[in-house]
Amino acid sequence: MKVLILGGDGYLGWPTAMNLAAKGHEVYVVDNYLRRNISRMTSSEALVPVPNLNGRAEIFKALTDREVLVKIGDCADYRTMEQVVRDFLPDAVVHYAEQPSAPYSMSGFNEARLTLNNNLGVTFNLIWAVLEHVPDCHIIKLGTMGEYGTPNIDIEEGWLDVEHKGRKERFLYPRQAGSLYHTTKILDTDLLWFYVRLYGLRVTDLMQGPVYGLSTDEADLDVRLRPHFNYDDIFGTVVNRFLVQAVAGVPLTVYGKGGQTRGYLNLKDTLQCVTLALDSPVEKGELRILNQFTEQFSVNDLAQRIARVGNQMGLKVQIQSIENPRKEKEEHYYNAAHSGLIDLGLQPHFMTDDVIHSMIKQVMEYKDHIDIKKILPRVRWS
Amino acid sequence: MKVLILGGDGYLGWPTAMNLAAKGHEVYVVDNYLRRNISRMTSSEALVPVPNLNGRAEIFKALTDREVLVKIGDCADYRTMEQVVRDFLPDAVVHYAEQPSAPYSMSGFNEARLTLNNNLGVTFNLIWAVLEHVPDCHIIKLGTMGEYGTPNIDIEEGWLDVEHKGRKERFLYPRQAGSLYHTTKILDTDLLWFYVRLYGLRVTDLMQGPVYGLSTDEADLDVRLRPHFNYDDIFGTVVNRFLVQAVAGVPLTVYGKGGQTRGYLNLKDTLQCVTLALDSPVEKGELRILNQFTEQFSVNDLAQRIARVGNQMGLKVQIQSIENPRKEKEEHYYNAAHSGLIDLGLQPHFMTDDVIHSMIKQVMEYKDHIDIKKILPRVRWS
Repeated sequence: MKVLILGGDGYLGWPTAMNLAAKGHEVYVVDNYLRRNISRMTSSEALVPVPNLNGRAEIFKALTDREVLVKIGDCADYRTMEQVVRDFLPDAVVHYAEQPSAPYSMSGFNEARLTLNNNLGVTFNLIWAVLEHVPDCHIIKLGTMGEYGTPNIDIEEGWLDVEHKGRKERFLYPRQAGSLYHTTKILDTDLLWFYVRLYGLRVTDLMQGPVYGLSTDEADLDVRLRPHFNYDDIFGTVVNRFLVQAVAGVPLTVYGKGGQTRGYLNLKDTLQCVTLALDSPVEKGELRILNQFTEQFSVNDLAQRIARVGNQMGLKVQIQSIENPRKEKEEHYYNAAHSGLIDLGLQPHFMTDDVIHSMIKQVMEYKDHIDIKKILPRVRWS
Repeated sequence: MKVLILGGDGYLGWPTAMNLAAKGHEVYVVDNYLRRNISRMTSSEALVPVPNLNGRAEIFKALTDREVLVKIGDCADYRTMEQVVRDFLPDAVVHYAEQPSAPYSMSGFNEARLTLNNNLGVTFNLIWAVLEHVPDCHIIKLGTMGEYGTPNIDIEEGWLDVEHKGRKERFLYPRQAGSLYHTTKILDTDLLWFYVRLYGLRVTDLMQGPVYGLSTDEADLDVRLRPHFNYDDIFGTVVNRFLVQAVAGVPLTVYGKGGQTRGYLNLKDTLQCVTLALDSPVEKGELRILNQFTEQFSVNDLAQRIARVGNQMGLKVQIQSIENPRKEKEEHYYNAAHSGLIDLGLQPHFMTDDVIHSMIKQVMEYKDHIDIKKILPRVRWS
C-alpha cells in the first residue's frame, strides 16, 4: 500500500514510517521540522539528539534495505500539499502534522495563532488535496482523547446516542477540551466530519491518549533511529517527565491533587493501531472514530508506579505536588470506552513493572543529558 | 455605551449601526467590503445600489445628526483589529464580520479557504484583542440556527442536558451543519466557548435564522440608507428571492420537495435582539446562547404565502420545484426552542400578509433592476 505520512519526523511519525516500511508498504513522509524548531525556540530539546529526517531515512535504509521517501516541506502550504498528493497518489494518509503541545498553544498570541493556523490549515489542505486527486484515499487522522475533556458521563467511542423528549438522535460525542491545542483537534473533527458527510471522504479518527516509551522494533535497531524523547514541560508528556525525574533524582512533580485521569498507551501500541486502521479501511462517506488507549491511570497512580519501580532499582524517588499550571479538574469522573481497536485485533502492551523498568534503564543511559530546569512548568493557563 | 460593530457595511451590520446610533450609543463600524467584493466577483449585486459606508454614514448624520464612526479595514488582520479595539475601548462588540454565503463557501477551494480563514481568523483576532485590551467587553456574536442542522430531536437553546447510563451532563448542543459557511460558525462557537471557559470572556451567541426584509426605522428615512437587498443565489436568502421572483413574474423556485423547515425573522427583530442582548450583558465566564428567530416555516409554506399575497396584488405568481443544488434533508423533523429572547422582551414582527404586501411593494419600486439570471442556483453541493 502507498502510505503518505504527514508529520513524519515527529515522536509518532518517524516510528510509524519505519514500521510501515518494515511491513513492506511504500512510505512517503513529509515534515517541515516545526516540532524541532519549536523545541529549539523554547529550549525544550529532546533527551537524545537524532539526525535529521533524511539522515534517519539513510540509516534505516542501510540497516534494513527498506526505503522511506522524504520530503521536507510545509503541508500548511497548499502547493506543497497538493504536489505531494498528486505525485505520490497515496492509498492512505496518516495525518500527524499538527503542533502537538498544549502548553505551547497556551503561551501567547503568536503561539496560539500558529497552532490554530497550522493544525486547521493542514487538515483543510489535506481534505482538498484528497478530494481533488485521490478521492478514495483513506485518511487516518490522529485526534486526541483530550477532545472529550472530562464529562460527568461515560465517554463513548466518538458518538453519543441521545434520547430526548421521546425522540432519538445519534450525535458526534460532544467535545470540550482543556487547551487550545486540544481545541484545534475539535475543529479538525468538525471540518472532517463535514467533508465526510458532504463529499464522501473516508476517514478514521484515532482519538489517542498520552503515549509513552521510546522503544519499537525498528527504533531499537540503532540509537539514531529512536523517536524524539521529550521530558520538558512543553513537549514531554507526564510519563516521560516522571521517568526522567526519577532518574535525575528530583521529585516527580504532580500538578495539583493528581486525580487527573486519562487513558494511556505504549508507543508500540500506537503503531499497532495505525496498522489496524490501515488494514481495515472505511467506506466512502464514513467517519470511524476509535478511542486509542489501553488503560486508564490518574497522575497519582502513574507517579506511584514509577516511584515504586524506581525505588526497586535503587533510585530514591520522591513525589511532590506542585501548583497546577493548568485549568483543569483535579478530581473527576472518567470512564472511556475503547473496545473498537481491541475488536480490530489490538494486543496491548500494558504498563507493567517490567516496561517501566526498561524505560527507566533507557533513560539512565542518557542521565548526563538531563537538564532539570526544563521540567518544571513555564506556561500557566491564565 | 460604546459599541463596536464588525462587518458594519453588511445586510445586518449597517441597519444595526444606525439603530444603535439612533438610540444614543457611541457606534464605531469596521468593514473591509468583503461582501461587496464577492457580490461583484460573482455577479450577485444587490437590487438597489447604495453609497459606500462612509457615504452612508454622512447621509445618516445629515438626516439625524447622529454619528456612526467608520473604519475601512480587515479584522482578519490582527494589527487592524487590535488598533480598533485599543483606540475605541468598546463596552460591547457586535461581530458580523463573516463571509455569510453558504453557496459561495461551497463553490470551490479558494472560496472555501477564504471563508474558513476569514471567519475563524476574525473571531480569533477579536478574542485576543478583547482579552488583551478590554477583558470585560461583552462580545455579541452572530451565530446561525444552521449550526444545529436538522436533528431528529428538539433543538434546544444552545445546550443539551444528557442523561446517559444513570449519570448526567450538560453539553453544548451538538452541531452539524449543511455548508462550509455554517461549519465555520460551529468552529467559531468551539473557539469562543473555549476562551469563555478558560479566560472568562463574556459572550452572547445569537443563533439566528434567515432574516427577511429591508425596512427599519432608520433605513426608511432615505433610500440610500437601505440595507443591501440580495435576491441572487449567492447572497439572497429564500424569502428575498421569492419576493423578487414574484415581482419579476418568474416562478418561485423551491429546491426539491420544499419541506426544509427553518426559523425566520424580520430584519426589525434582528435589531431588537441585538439591543436586548446589549442591555443585558452576561457575567464573565458566561456563554449565553439565544436562538434568534420568531416563527418556523417550510420552504413550501413560504412560497405559498408569498404567492397568495402576490396574487391578491394582481401578480401572477407560480411555484416551481427545481432540482435541489444542496445536499440537505427535504423532509425532516424540526422543532427549535426560542424562548430566551422572548423572555428578554422581544416583541416579534411576524410575517403577516401585510408585511409580505409591503415587502412586495418595496421590491416593485425596483422591478427594472431585477436580473432574473442571478436567481437560479449556480453552485451545486458536489
